[in-house]
Amino acid sequence: MTPEEFRRFGYELIDRIADYRAGIANRAVMAQVAPDEIKNLLPQSAPENPQPVPEILRDLDWIISGLSHWQHPRFFGYFPANALLAGVLGDLASTGLGVVGLSWQSAPALTELEEVVVDWIRQMLGLSEAWSGVIQDTASTNAVVALISARERATRYSMWRGGLQAEARPLALYVTEHTHSSVTKGALLAGFGREHVRTVPHDGSYAMRADALAEIVNADAAAGLKPCAVVVTTGTTATMAIDPIRDVAAVARSNALWLHVDAAMAGSAMILPECRWMWDGVEEADSLVGIPFDCSIYFTSDPEHLTKVMSTGPSYLRSNVDGAVKNLRNWGIPLGRRFRALKVWFVLREQGLAALRGRLRRDIANAGWLVEAVHAAPDWRVLAPVNLQTVCLRHEPLGLTGEALDAHTLGWANRINASGAGYLTPAVLDGRWMVRVAIGSEMTEREDVEAIWLSMRREAEAAHLSP
Amino acid sequence: MTPEEFRRFGYELIDRIADYRAGIANRAVMAQVAPDEIKNLLPQSAPENPQPVPEILRDLDWIISGLSHWQHPRFFGYFPANALLAGVLGDLASTGLGVVGLSWQSAPALTELEEVVVDWIRQMLGLSEAWSGVIQDTASTNAVVALISARERATRYSMWRGGLQAEARPLALYVTEHTHSSVTKGALLAGFGREHVRTVPHDGSYAMRADALAEIVNADAAAGLKPCAVVVTTGTTATMAIDPIRDVAAVARSNALWLHVDAAMAGSAMILPECRWMWDGVEEADSLVGIPFDCSIYFTSDPEHLTKVMSTGPSYLRSNVDGAVKNLRNWGIPLGRRFRALKVWFVLREQGLAALRGRLRRDIANAGWLVEAVHAAPDWRVLAPVNLQTVCLRHEPLGLTGEALDAHTLGWANRINASGAGYLTPAVLDGRWMVRVAIGSEMTEREDVEAIWLSMRREAEAAHLSP
Repeated sequence: MTPEEFRRFGYELIDRIADYRAGIANRAVMAQVAPDEIKNLLPQSAPENPQPVPEILRDLDWIISGLSHWQHPRFFGYFPANALLAGVLGDLASTGLGVVGLSWQSAPALTELEEVVVDWIRQMLGLSEAWSGVIQDTASTNAVVALISARERATRYSMWRGGLQAEARPLALYVTEHTHSSVTKGALLAGFGREHVRTVPHDGSYAMRADALAEIVNADAAAGLKPCAVVVTTGTTATMAIDPIRDVAAVARSNALWLHVDAAMAGSAMILPECRWMWDGVEEADSLVGIPFDCSIYFTSDPEHLTKVMSTGPSYLRSNVDGAVKNLRNWGIPLGRRFRALKVWFVLREQGLAALRGRLRRDIANAGWLVEAVHAAPDWRVLAPVNLQTVCLRHEPLGLTGEALDAHTLGWANRINASGAGYLTPAVLDGRWMVRVAIGSEMTEREDVEAIWLSMRREAEAAHLSP
Repeated sequence: MTPEEFRRFGYELIDRIADYRAGIANRAVMAQVAPDEIKNLLPQSAPENPQPVPEILRDLDWIISGLSHWQHPRFFGYFPANALLAGVLGDLASTGLGVVGLSWQSAPALTELEEVVVDWIRQMLGLSEAWSGVIQDTASTNAVVALISARERATRYSMWRGGLQAEARPLALYVTEHTHSSVTKGALLAGFGREHVRTVPHDGSYAMRADALAEIVNADAAAGLKPCAVVVTTGTTATMAIDPIRDVAAVARSNALWLHVDAAMAGSAMILPECRWMWDGVEEADSLVGIPFDCSIYFTSDPEHLTKVMSTGPSYLRSNVDGAVKNLRNWGIPLGRRFRALKVWFVLREQGLAALRGRLRRDIANAGWLVEAVHAAPDWRVLAPVNLQTVCLRHEPLGLTGEALDAHTLGWANRINASGAGYLTPAVLDGRWMVRVAIGSEMTEREDVEAIWLSMRREAEAAHLSP
């Protein structure tokens, strides 16, 4: 493809994306396809000869019809994953430049722009200058990085000697039932045993109990384990519960535990001063993950330790400025990296902080409206404190309990999803199914929240009214 | 940004990328900036109010001036990292759709298109149907995945019990001095100790000696270690050496070692039947990484094992089609993923196999031309067999040895890099610096190879001629 062809086809693709976004609200939110339906449309092998680009672009039509639409104003599933159009441009610039950040010298602007925008985000979140950040690919990878960092501090760099196996006392990790699944996965990948991933009891708001943590840590140490790390969550996935960082930090400090803060869900809300209470004590943590604005950032309060654990320096990657620059390959698992900072750079400048704050406040107010509506409706219940934009609810008609209630809940939620009217994520809370409504898509306005609430009432109450 | 604004600014950005690519040959290849030069240009904090998008787009000018140009026809550094314009469009489509592949249901077409194109690549590489592939983010991540898979097979899933520490005999890994640095890094991250990453001697062509491997494995087992995995490389980074897979596989089989094939460098050449001898025996491997066409693919011959090690299934990610679909989150570390397959889909269709083969053959012929030229020039030497497109060479004037030779080599290579005439990567081979010329940028034609050769002769010979 020549640059001139790229120009022509590029315009066409930009048009297709603009049209897709402009018309997204008219689509069914959840993909209306069956397993293998897409696969069966596709050729079994790559073509021997070139195919016309317009044909490839036209195929986007059926690809789109096989997607659930995360940018839809009535997408209330999983978590808000806004792909703002300014970010799309930033990402296009990144891929178009085609550079790889192997080392500072291989792409100096990639490295330095990242240093700058990550520091912008540090300030936006109200973190002190003690924190250094780096863009990682996903929150799951960040969990692995945090737990390996914890492991290596606790074992005084066993990786440089006999490895984890040379350590006699089994390392233990502390989480709650509501800690994200990627944390346990990350611990197991890092070599911890599932038997030593300890579940700390939570209180009635689903937040970790620091007193219970202290007890378990003491008991484990007495039993010959080596307590290694604790993960607190600012905004759990199921209910947006807020673990008490300051109280946990006190336990961590007196037991030499690595303290990791998982703020993948609620991190972006920390740009609102009125939400900062949620991570009171965060400055005492060792590592912190937030996913504000479409990228996952890992903050460390000890960059020297991180780069010791992650460093690699074969001869072909050395340069004579290594002492004066940041080499991002030493800040995470991957060696190469795309120019990720461009997306953040575009989004923050095109939006400005005031607009970002405004949209978050809109979402929180929308969640507040839904909470009021649920409270006012007979047989409906809000199941957990609503600190931000996630509302956990259930329709509980009189006399319906246990598995019958589960069937009712999954039934109405799945019917709404299948209808295309909205996308909701059922989840298990205290052993029973409930429905999460995660508000925060860029296009989601009050009327969308009103509409999904109407759908919920209609579907649930038509199936089962209290006698 | 509204879809209409996106259309306008998107056109402008497409133009900028087209112009950048069209004029790239006129730029200095290596970035001509000093450390902190870019950083010092930038505002210290994010803006409170929105900034005009045209201004953000204009800033790309100085960002580009702070980059080394990987797509430049005279980029001979590190490894070819082609970002074909068709792939840029595929990536733009991915980011523009803004979907996240958490589970099949969250983006069915994302999952199924990936299944199909990964199978296309399996066929292109001549791999049997026994292999299942998945797109991962980088080769380094793939190394971690492979080594954790090896660890868990050797310990019969210690992760589900007491973890790596519960295993008495230290796990050992076998590599050569020329195995990529990400493999040792990955092993250490996976909990192996550096003491147990064993360096197997290589032969005169820098390839692993299978007989030496057998000896070391036996000695280790006798000494109480548990030999766990061996990594063979198809195309080492420094010299493109080809480890003998079939011979190593025999040793691996009789010692129950996990056999991982790192074909990140030479994997794409396996679309040429005449190169397939390079991984004779590959079907006996357990895992395989290739980076053909701008994405890193992990192939496993035991997908059930991989998904056992990588699985995670909290309630909010379950759906009632889970038995019938592939959930990509169980095939690697990250939970979320972008629509990566679109890039591959665009590139393979827009190019067609014949064109991809043609370009590879052009690059191999260009390397052959350079080898002949070096052989014919007095005082110049090719230092390793040239199997593909990487030529390792040195200018060795009579009487210049040791550190003086190193200074000479680094001197002329760095002067060329600093001049902008080309980008070369010096590396250490057998304890002495040499220069790698990695040929294979999409735009690199014979005349570019002739030009860099001329530059090399001029710089090196002007500094030092044999007496």
